[in-house]
Amino acid sequence: MREVGIGLLGFGTVGGGVVAGLRRNADLLARRLGARPVIRRIADLDLERDRGVPVDRGLLTRDAAAVVRDPATEIVVELIGGTGAAWELVRMALEQGKPVVTANKALLAERGAELFALAARTGTGVHFEASVGGGIPIVRALRDGLVGDRVDGIVGILNGTCNYILTRMEAEHMSFDQALAEARREGYAEADPSLDIDGVDTAHKAVILASLAYGGCVPMQAVRVAGIRGLDRTDIEYGADLGYRVKLLAVIRRAGEEAEIGVHPALVPTDHVLASVSGVFNAVSVDSDMAGRTLYYGRGAGREPTASAVIGDIADVVREVTAGGPARPAAIGGGAAIRVKAAGEIVARYYMRLSLLDKPGVFGRIATVLGRHEISIASVLQKEVRVGEYVPVVAVTHAARERQFDAALREIDGLDIVGAPTVRIRIEE
Amino acid sequence: MREVGIGLLGFGTVGGGVVAGLRRNADLLARRLGARPVIRRIADLDLERDRGVPVDRGLLTRDAAAVVRDPATEIVVELIGGTGAAWELVRMALEQGKPVVTANKALLAERGAELFALAARTGTGVHFEASVGGGIPIVRALRDGLVGDRVDGIVGILNGTCNYILTRMEAEHMSFDQALAEARREGYAEADPSLDIDGVDTAHKAVILASLAYGGCVPMQAVRVAGIRGLDRTDIEYGADLGYRVKLLAVIRRAGEEAEIGVHPALVPTDHVLASVSGVFNAVSVDSDMAGRTLYYGRGAGREPTASAVIGDIADVVREVTAGGPARPAAIGGGAAIRVKAAGEIVARYYMRLSLLDKPGVFGRIATVLGRHEISIASVLQKEVRVGEYVPVVAVTHAARERQFDAALREIDGLDIVGAPTVRIRIEE
Repeated sequence: MREVGIGLLGFGTVGGGVVAGLRRNADLLARRLGARPVIRRIADLDLERDRGVPVDRGLLTRDAAAVVRDPATEIVVELIGGTGAAWELVRMALEQGKPVVTANKALLAERGAELFALAARTGTGVHFEASVGGGIPIVRALRDGLVGDRVDGIVGILNGTCNYILTRMEAEHMSFDQALAEARREGYAEADPSLDIDGVDTAHKAVILASLAYGGCVPMQAVRVAGIRGLDRTDIEYGADLGYRVKLLAVIRRAGEEAEIGVHPALVPTDHVLASVSGVFNAVSVDSDMAGRTLYYGRGAGREPTASAVIGDIADVVREVTAGGPARPAAIGGGAAIRVKAAGEIVARYYMRLSLLDKPGVFGRIATVLGRHEISIASVLQKEVRVGEYVPVVAVTHAARERQFDAALREIDGLDIVGAPTVRIRIEE
Repeated sequence: MREVGIGLLGFGTVGGGVVAGLRRNADLLARRLGARPVIRRIADLDLERDRGVPVDRGLLTRDAAAVVRDPATEIVVELIGGTGAAWELVRMALEQGKPVVTANKALLAERGAELFALAARTGTGVHFEASVGGGIPIVRALRDGLVGDRVDGIVGILNGTCNYILTRMEAEHMSFDQALAEARREGYAEADPSLDIDGVDTAHKAVILASLAYGGCVPMQAVRVAGIRGLDRTDIEYGADLGYRVKLLAVIRRAGEEAEIGVHPALVPTDHVLASVSGVFNAVSVDSDMAGRTLYYGRGAGREPTASAVIGDIADVVREVTAGGPARPAAIGGGAAIRVKAAGEIVARYYMRLSLLDKPGVFGRIATVLGRHEISIASVLQKEVRVGEYVPVVAVTHAARERQFDAALREIDGLDIVGAPTVRIRIEE
C-alpha cells in the first residue's frame, strides 16, 4: 500500500496526540484512505521529554528546516504555534510546493492572506481544521458542507478556558479570580492566561471563520475584542434572574456587503442552545440562506480532539496526493460488515409504567419478580391517580440486560394484580 | 470558466430548491469552486406544475434515462426517491461512470452495498449528504472530519415529523393523535405518515450512519425498529416528573467488533443536549476515540436545507471533475475582503447595571437621558441590596445603535446620582 510521508514540526501535547492517534488507528485509516500516512521525521527543540508515546529516536531532530526539505516529507504538519519560527517553516514548505497542515490560529489570523496567496502560487494547500474548535469539524462544515450557502451569521463559543471560568462563576457563585485560579489548577488555563481571557484567542478564531465564510481577508485589527477579565459575578447572577447566561462570544454578522466581527461577553437566553454549552466545550452556530441554522458542538481544545482534526486534514491531503486511489472512502459496502448485536443482549436502563391494584404489598410482588431476574429498581414514583381499582406506578430500573427485562415483564404482566400491559421505554444517558 | 453539466432527475420540492439555490448563489459558487455547475436537463413526470422557480421549458423532459445518457450530463442528481425507478436510473448512471448525488435514504439503506460496489468498479462515486439530517453536514463530518477516529457511538434525532409530534405532546399536553393531526395541518407530516411515525425513515438513516462509521454493509433487517405511534402522553408527563424527555432516537453503539443498531423512543435526561432539540430540528451526537463527543444540529428536512446538502455534494464532484482547478477553495485571502462594520453602527440590545442613589425619582432621570438618545427600556429590575447609599438597578434595553448607547452611558456616568461606572453587556438573541 502506498505510504505518504509526514514531517512533524513540534512534538508537544498535540504532536504527541497526532503520533499516538496515527499509530492506534493506523489500519482503520489505511482502509478508509487506501494509503498509509507515516511519520518520517519529527522536529522539536526538546528531544528528551517523554510524550507518553514511544517513537524511534532516529525520527527526532532539532533541525525543523531539514524536516521540511527532506524529500521523504510529503506533508508538513506544523504544531509549533506562534508567528515566529512557524511562519518561516510554513513559508518554506509552501515555497517547495508541500502541503501544510496546521493548528496555528495566530499564524492564520495574522498572516493567512500571505500564506494562502503563496500556496495558490505553488499549487498546494494550507489545511487548518485544528485551528478552530479543536475536534469540531467546523472548517469543513463551512468550506464544504455549506459551500452552496450564503452565510449570514456565525456565533461561537470558541475558548474553553473562558467558558470554563464563566460556567464555574455561575454554577458555584465564584468570583472571576476564584474561577480563574481553579481553571489553572485543573489545567484549563495557562500560567499566563491573557490570550484566552482577554479574548485574543477567540478573535483569532473569529478571523478564520469570517475569512472562511466571506473569502476575503479580515485583518485582526478590524475585530473589536473584549474579554472576560474582571467580569463581576453580580452581573452573571442578575443576568440569570433575567433569564440569560453570560458567554464569551465570537459574533460575525453580515448585512449586505458589510459584516460585524467582534468578540465580547454577552447575555444569551437560557433556552438558547449556546447557553447550554458548559465547561470546556465549544460550539458554533451558523445561519445560512439555505441550510438555515446549523450548530456544531464538541471539545474545543486538548491533545486528542485537536489531534483528531489534524489527522482529518492529513487524510484530506493523503487523498489528494494519492488521487489514483478512491477519491472518497467507499463508506458503504467497503469493509466487512460489523456484527449487529442481538436485541436481547443490549444492556440499558428502563422506565416502566405499571398498572397495579391499589392494595398494600402489591409493589413488593413486582420487586420480587424483578429481583429474580436480576433487575434492581433505581426509583419509584406512585401517581395519585386511580383508573378503576388500579393505580399507575412508575419505576426506573438500573441497567439490565434486555432479555432478562423482557422475561420479567412477561411474568409481571401475567400477575393478577396487574391491570394493563406494562409500558416500557428505554433510557439513553 | 469551465461549466459542469448536471442532469436532474426529479423536479419536486427538493429539486426546485436545488435549481433555485444553484441559480441564486451561482456567482458565489463559481468563485468558491473555480467552475460553474449548470443544470443541463431536468426529468420529471409532471412537466406542468409550478415549482416556484422559472426554468427554460426546453430543459424539461419525461425521459429520465435520456437525461442520464446525455453526454451533457456529467453529474446525475437523483431526487426521485424510493427504490424503483431511482434504482434503475442510479445504476445506469454508475454503469456509465457518471457520479451520482442523491438524497434517497431508502435506496442507500436497502441497496447501498450494490451501488457502492458498482461505483467502485466504474471508478466513480455516490454522494449522499442529503440523505441524513437535511442541512446538517453529518455525512462529511463522519467521513472526512472523523476519518482518523474510531467511532464508539452515534445517537441521533433524525426524523423531524416525530420530533415535532413529541415536542407538541410534551409542551401542549396533546395526545399522539392530536399532535399528529396538527403536524399534518402544518405540513410536517405526510398524508400517510407511517414511514415516519413507525421509525422506518429513522432506521434508513441509522443504517447509513452505521455504514459510514463502520464501513460494512448493515442490512436493514438487522435494525430493531420501534416508532412512536400510539405513544401515551402519560408517559411523557411521568418522564418529565423524573427529569427526562421522550425522543425517538437512532442508537448505534459499538462494543468490540459488534454494534447495537436500533430505533426506539427513549427517555433522555432533560439537561442532555439532545433533550433541547425541539420541533422539526434534528441532531446527531457522535462519540469517537479522539474527538470525544461532537454534536451536529440543524434542520433535518425541507426544501432549502436538503437542497443545501445536495449542492454541497455537487460542489464536491465539481472539484473532482475539474481537479485542475483549486483542490480546495482558497478560503482565506481568496476573494475581496468584506467590509468590517464600524463598531458604533452595530445595533444590539443591552443589559446595564447602574449604581444609583437610593432616592425617589432617580431612575426617571436615567430614563430621560436614555430617551434623549432614542434608547427605550424593555425591563428594569431593582435589587434589594444597598452598597453605601447606592442601590444596583438593572435595566435591559430594546435594540439601540451602539454609538447612541455609548453616548447615553457617558452622560449617565457623569450624573451626580450615579455612584460607579455603569456595567454593560450585550445581549445576543
